[in-house]
Amino acid sequence: MPAKKPDYNKLALALHKKLQGKIRVQTNGRLKTKTDWSTMYTPGVGAVSIHLSKQPREARLYTMKRHTVAVVSDGSAILGLGNLGAIPALPVMEGKAAIFKEMADIDAVPIVLDTQEPEDIIRTIKNIAPGFGGINLEDIAAPKCFEIEARLKSELNIPVMHDDQHGTAVVVLAGLINASKVLKKKLDGLKVVIVGAGAAGRAIALMLRRAGVGDVVVVDSRGAIYEGRTGLAGYKRELAKLTNPRQLSGDVLQVVEGADAIIGVSGPGTIAQVHIEHMAPEPIVFALANPIPEIMPQDAKRAGAAIVATGRSDFPNQINNALAFPGIFRGALDHGVCEITYDMKLAAAKKLAGLVKKPTAEAIIPSIMAPGLVKAIASAIKSAKR
Amino acid sequence: MPAKKPDYNKLALALHKKLQGKIRVQTNGRLKTKTDWSTMYTPGVGAVSIHLSKQPREARLYTMKRHTVAVVSDGSAILGLGNLGAIPALPVMEGKAAIFKEMADIDAVPIVLDTQEPEDIIRTIKNIAPGFGGINLEDIAAPKCFEIEARLKSELNIPVMHDDQHGTAVVVLAGLINASKVLKKKLDGLKVVIVGAGAAGRAIALMLRRAGVGDVVVVDSRGAIYEGRTGLAGYKRELAKLTNPRQLSGDVLQVVEGADAIIGVSGPGTIAQVHIEHMAPEPIVFALANPIPEIMPQDAKRAGAAIVATGRSDFPNQINNALAFPGIFRGALDHGVCEITYDMKLAAAKKLAGLVKKPTAEAIIPSIMAPGLVKAIASAIKSAKR
Repeated sequence: MPAKKPDYNKLALALHKKLQGKIRVQTNGRLKTKTDWSTMYTPGVGAVSIHLSKQPREARLYTMKRHTVAVVSDGSAILGLGNLGAIPALPVMEGKAAIFKEMADIDAVPIVLDTQEPEDIIRTIKNIAPGFGGINLEDIAAPKCFEIEARLKSELNIPVMHDDQHGTAVVVLAGLINASKVLKKKLDGLKVVIVGAGAAGRAIALMLRRAGVGDVVVVDSRGAIYEGRTGLAGYKRELAKLTNPRQLSGDVLQVVEGADAIIGVSGPGTIAQVHIEHMAPEPIVFALANPIPEIMPQDAKRAGAAIVATGRSDFPNQINNALAFPGIFRGALDHGVCEITYDMKLAAAKKLAGLVKKPTAEAIIPSIMAPGLVKAIASAIKSAKR
Repeated sequence: MPAKKPDYNKLALALHKKLQGKIRVQTNGRLKTKTDWSTMYTPGVGAVSIHLSKQPREARLYTMKRHTVAVVSDGSAILGLGNLGAIPALPVMEGKAAIFKEMADIDAVPIVLDTQEPEDIIRTIKNIAPGFGGINLEDIAAPKCFEIEARLKSELNIPVMHDDQHGTAVVVLAGLINASKVLKKKLDGLKVVIVGAGAAGRAIALMLRRAGVGDVVVVDSRGAIYEGRTGLAGYKRELAKLTNPRQLSGDVLQVVEGADAIIGVSGPGTIAQVHIEHMAPEPIVFALANPIPEIMPQDAKRAGAAIVATGRSDFPNQINNALAFPGIFRGALDHGVCEITYDMKLAAAKKLAGLVKKPTAEAIIPSIMAPGLVKAIASAIKSAKR
């Protein structure tokens, strides 16, 4: 039995009540003398406005745009809690903003939306975009998150990223790179089953395919996704085309036969010991549902798992988005990247994996405190193909 | 001749390039230990989300909402520079945010909009409102600013204020209270001419009427506004009903005959010495166009003005919005005020006037550095009728 854990819920409620907001705005510059007032504000600021009306791109040099990101949610898929709406999303977005600041010195502004309608969300974000250097979408439900992100990427000239998709996918790929290294398997030869076809499931599948993994099968609540499954629509049709080369059908127990890795991005209880027992020798189990994993690490181990990762900080191998997004945005903001491409995300995943000098079964992923983490990811973004 | 002034334009451009943004985000709380991460963010933050989904009003206790204001502009009327759009509005909104912070410890977030269409502006602001405790509208052109503010006031349950209107009107009223005291005239007996019928002109006229000033005449580019003037539409029709009891018509020279005060909120050159010469004895001249006043103070004095105020910090009697808005929002946020009423604005103006213990012709308005300024205004908001 693990040692008794602190009651994080109780601690978090008390902390939030004490802090009354996890971020504050700070003045850069001062307003003491008459000259301060006349240059920080009127009349001098007028000259900056006139300059920017002629050279709008120089907003990067003269304003907050250069280092500021909006963290936007409609509250439709908050953590694993579901659709709670705007106000309940606020403490999560504030936490995200605090992580942006502490890890990457990025100034992130939480924006929670009083609308859940995709067109309205797109229009609102486009309308508020000019003052920001990037848009981090967060906790927006699938499938609308795909359309919203795609439209914003094509219609805005600043980087836009839905972290629940791509942050997760980058860290999962990094973990899988090191897990295959530990087990002396080839990454592109892995047979991978993904349990869950939401935002994270789709993004992980597409990312693994881009990384060369040939045999990826995605399972939703109705079983494996394959071309020709009746009633398949929208993005699941696209997934069917890009995955499941053996055209497997059936439930997790059927498709997991002989698989090298199973990745849970669904909810507690969807991965069982019997699944792991049917996998190839030395199976890899990523049980990422948070806070309660698909299967607890000790149970997975007992069923034969060689390497286990979860989303939790209290077990080894934490697959944590915060390993990726601060460095990705830092790199994008610093190097004037307008669009975060697959090449950049692949480069970030490889760099992240490389930060673990000697991967072992208990250490396939660097710690969030790893020195140079953000800088390394940012440099991967810089050098990748645009 | 005044001493040679520093080139504020040049200084401001250099300062902005050095600062690269006048505001930053700061973490309140820390992310060092595992417990920090588990309470500032997941899994603990989930308990706060669940709590707020049941008690959304407690966002005031658990989030940034309590002390955070959005400073929103579409860039359609930036300072006296006109319609320059979103990006050129950004340094002005950042300056405003810096003033909010330095004067009232309010966390203000600049939001510049890539739309100038009123319905779209209203919808966007409503959509982003849940995370904010108040909305400060800024540099939005008349007449659309009136509709936008009115709609947001009625459709949101947080304070909304267009500062170019009401901040200005509060400070003008405070100045006029003390000016009449200095000249031993009765405020409600003053004959006042307002030159300019934009956002500020309308707000000042309505405020003076509420304060009991009976004889207010507003002049636009076509002359005095009176009931029955041909082609009068929209808000100017409303102004005609509420002002100009003597039904004056004609240009400034015609309506200024015998007036006690003339208030310029238009542009350089619209008030001339000849106007002042036709006013009542000991005339009051507020020439508020910025940076170049309607008439320079020394010229107004030479024409006989007893008291002169401008919008500039380099002359006596600066009519500066920053005397009002920080305290108004501080009071509203601290006391859960959902709507800033006329009674509150009147109370703020009286309190502001009262901060000058012994008004003189050269000191009708307190300095922006006056001790206790924000606290005094905030308490006026608290005690006024809701």
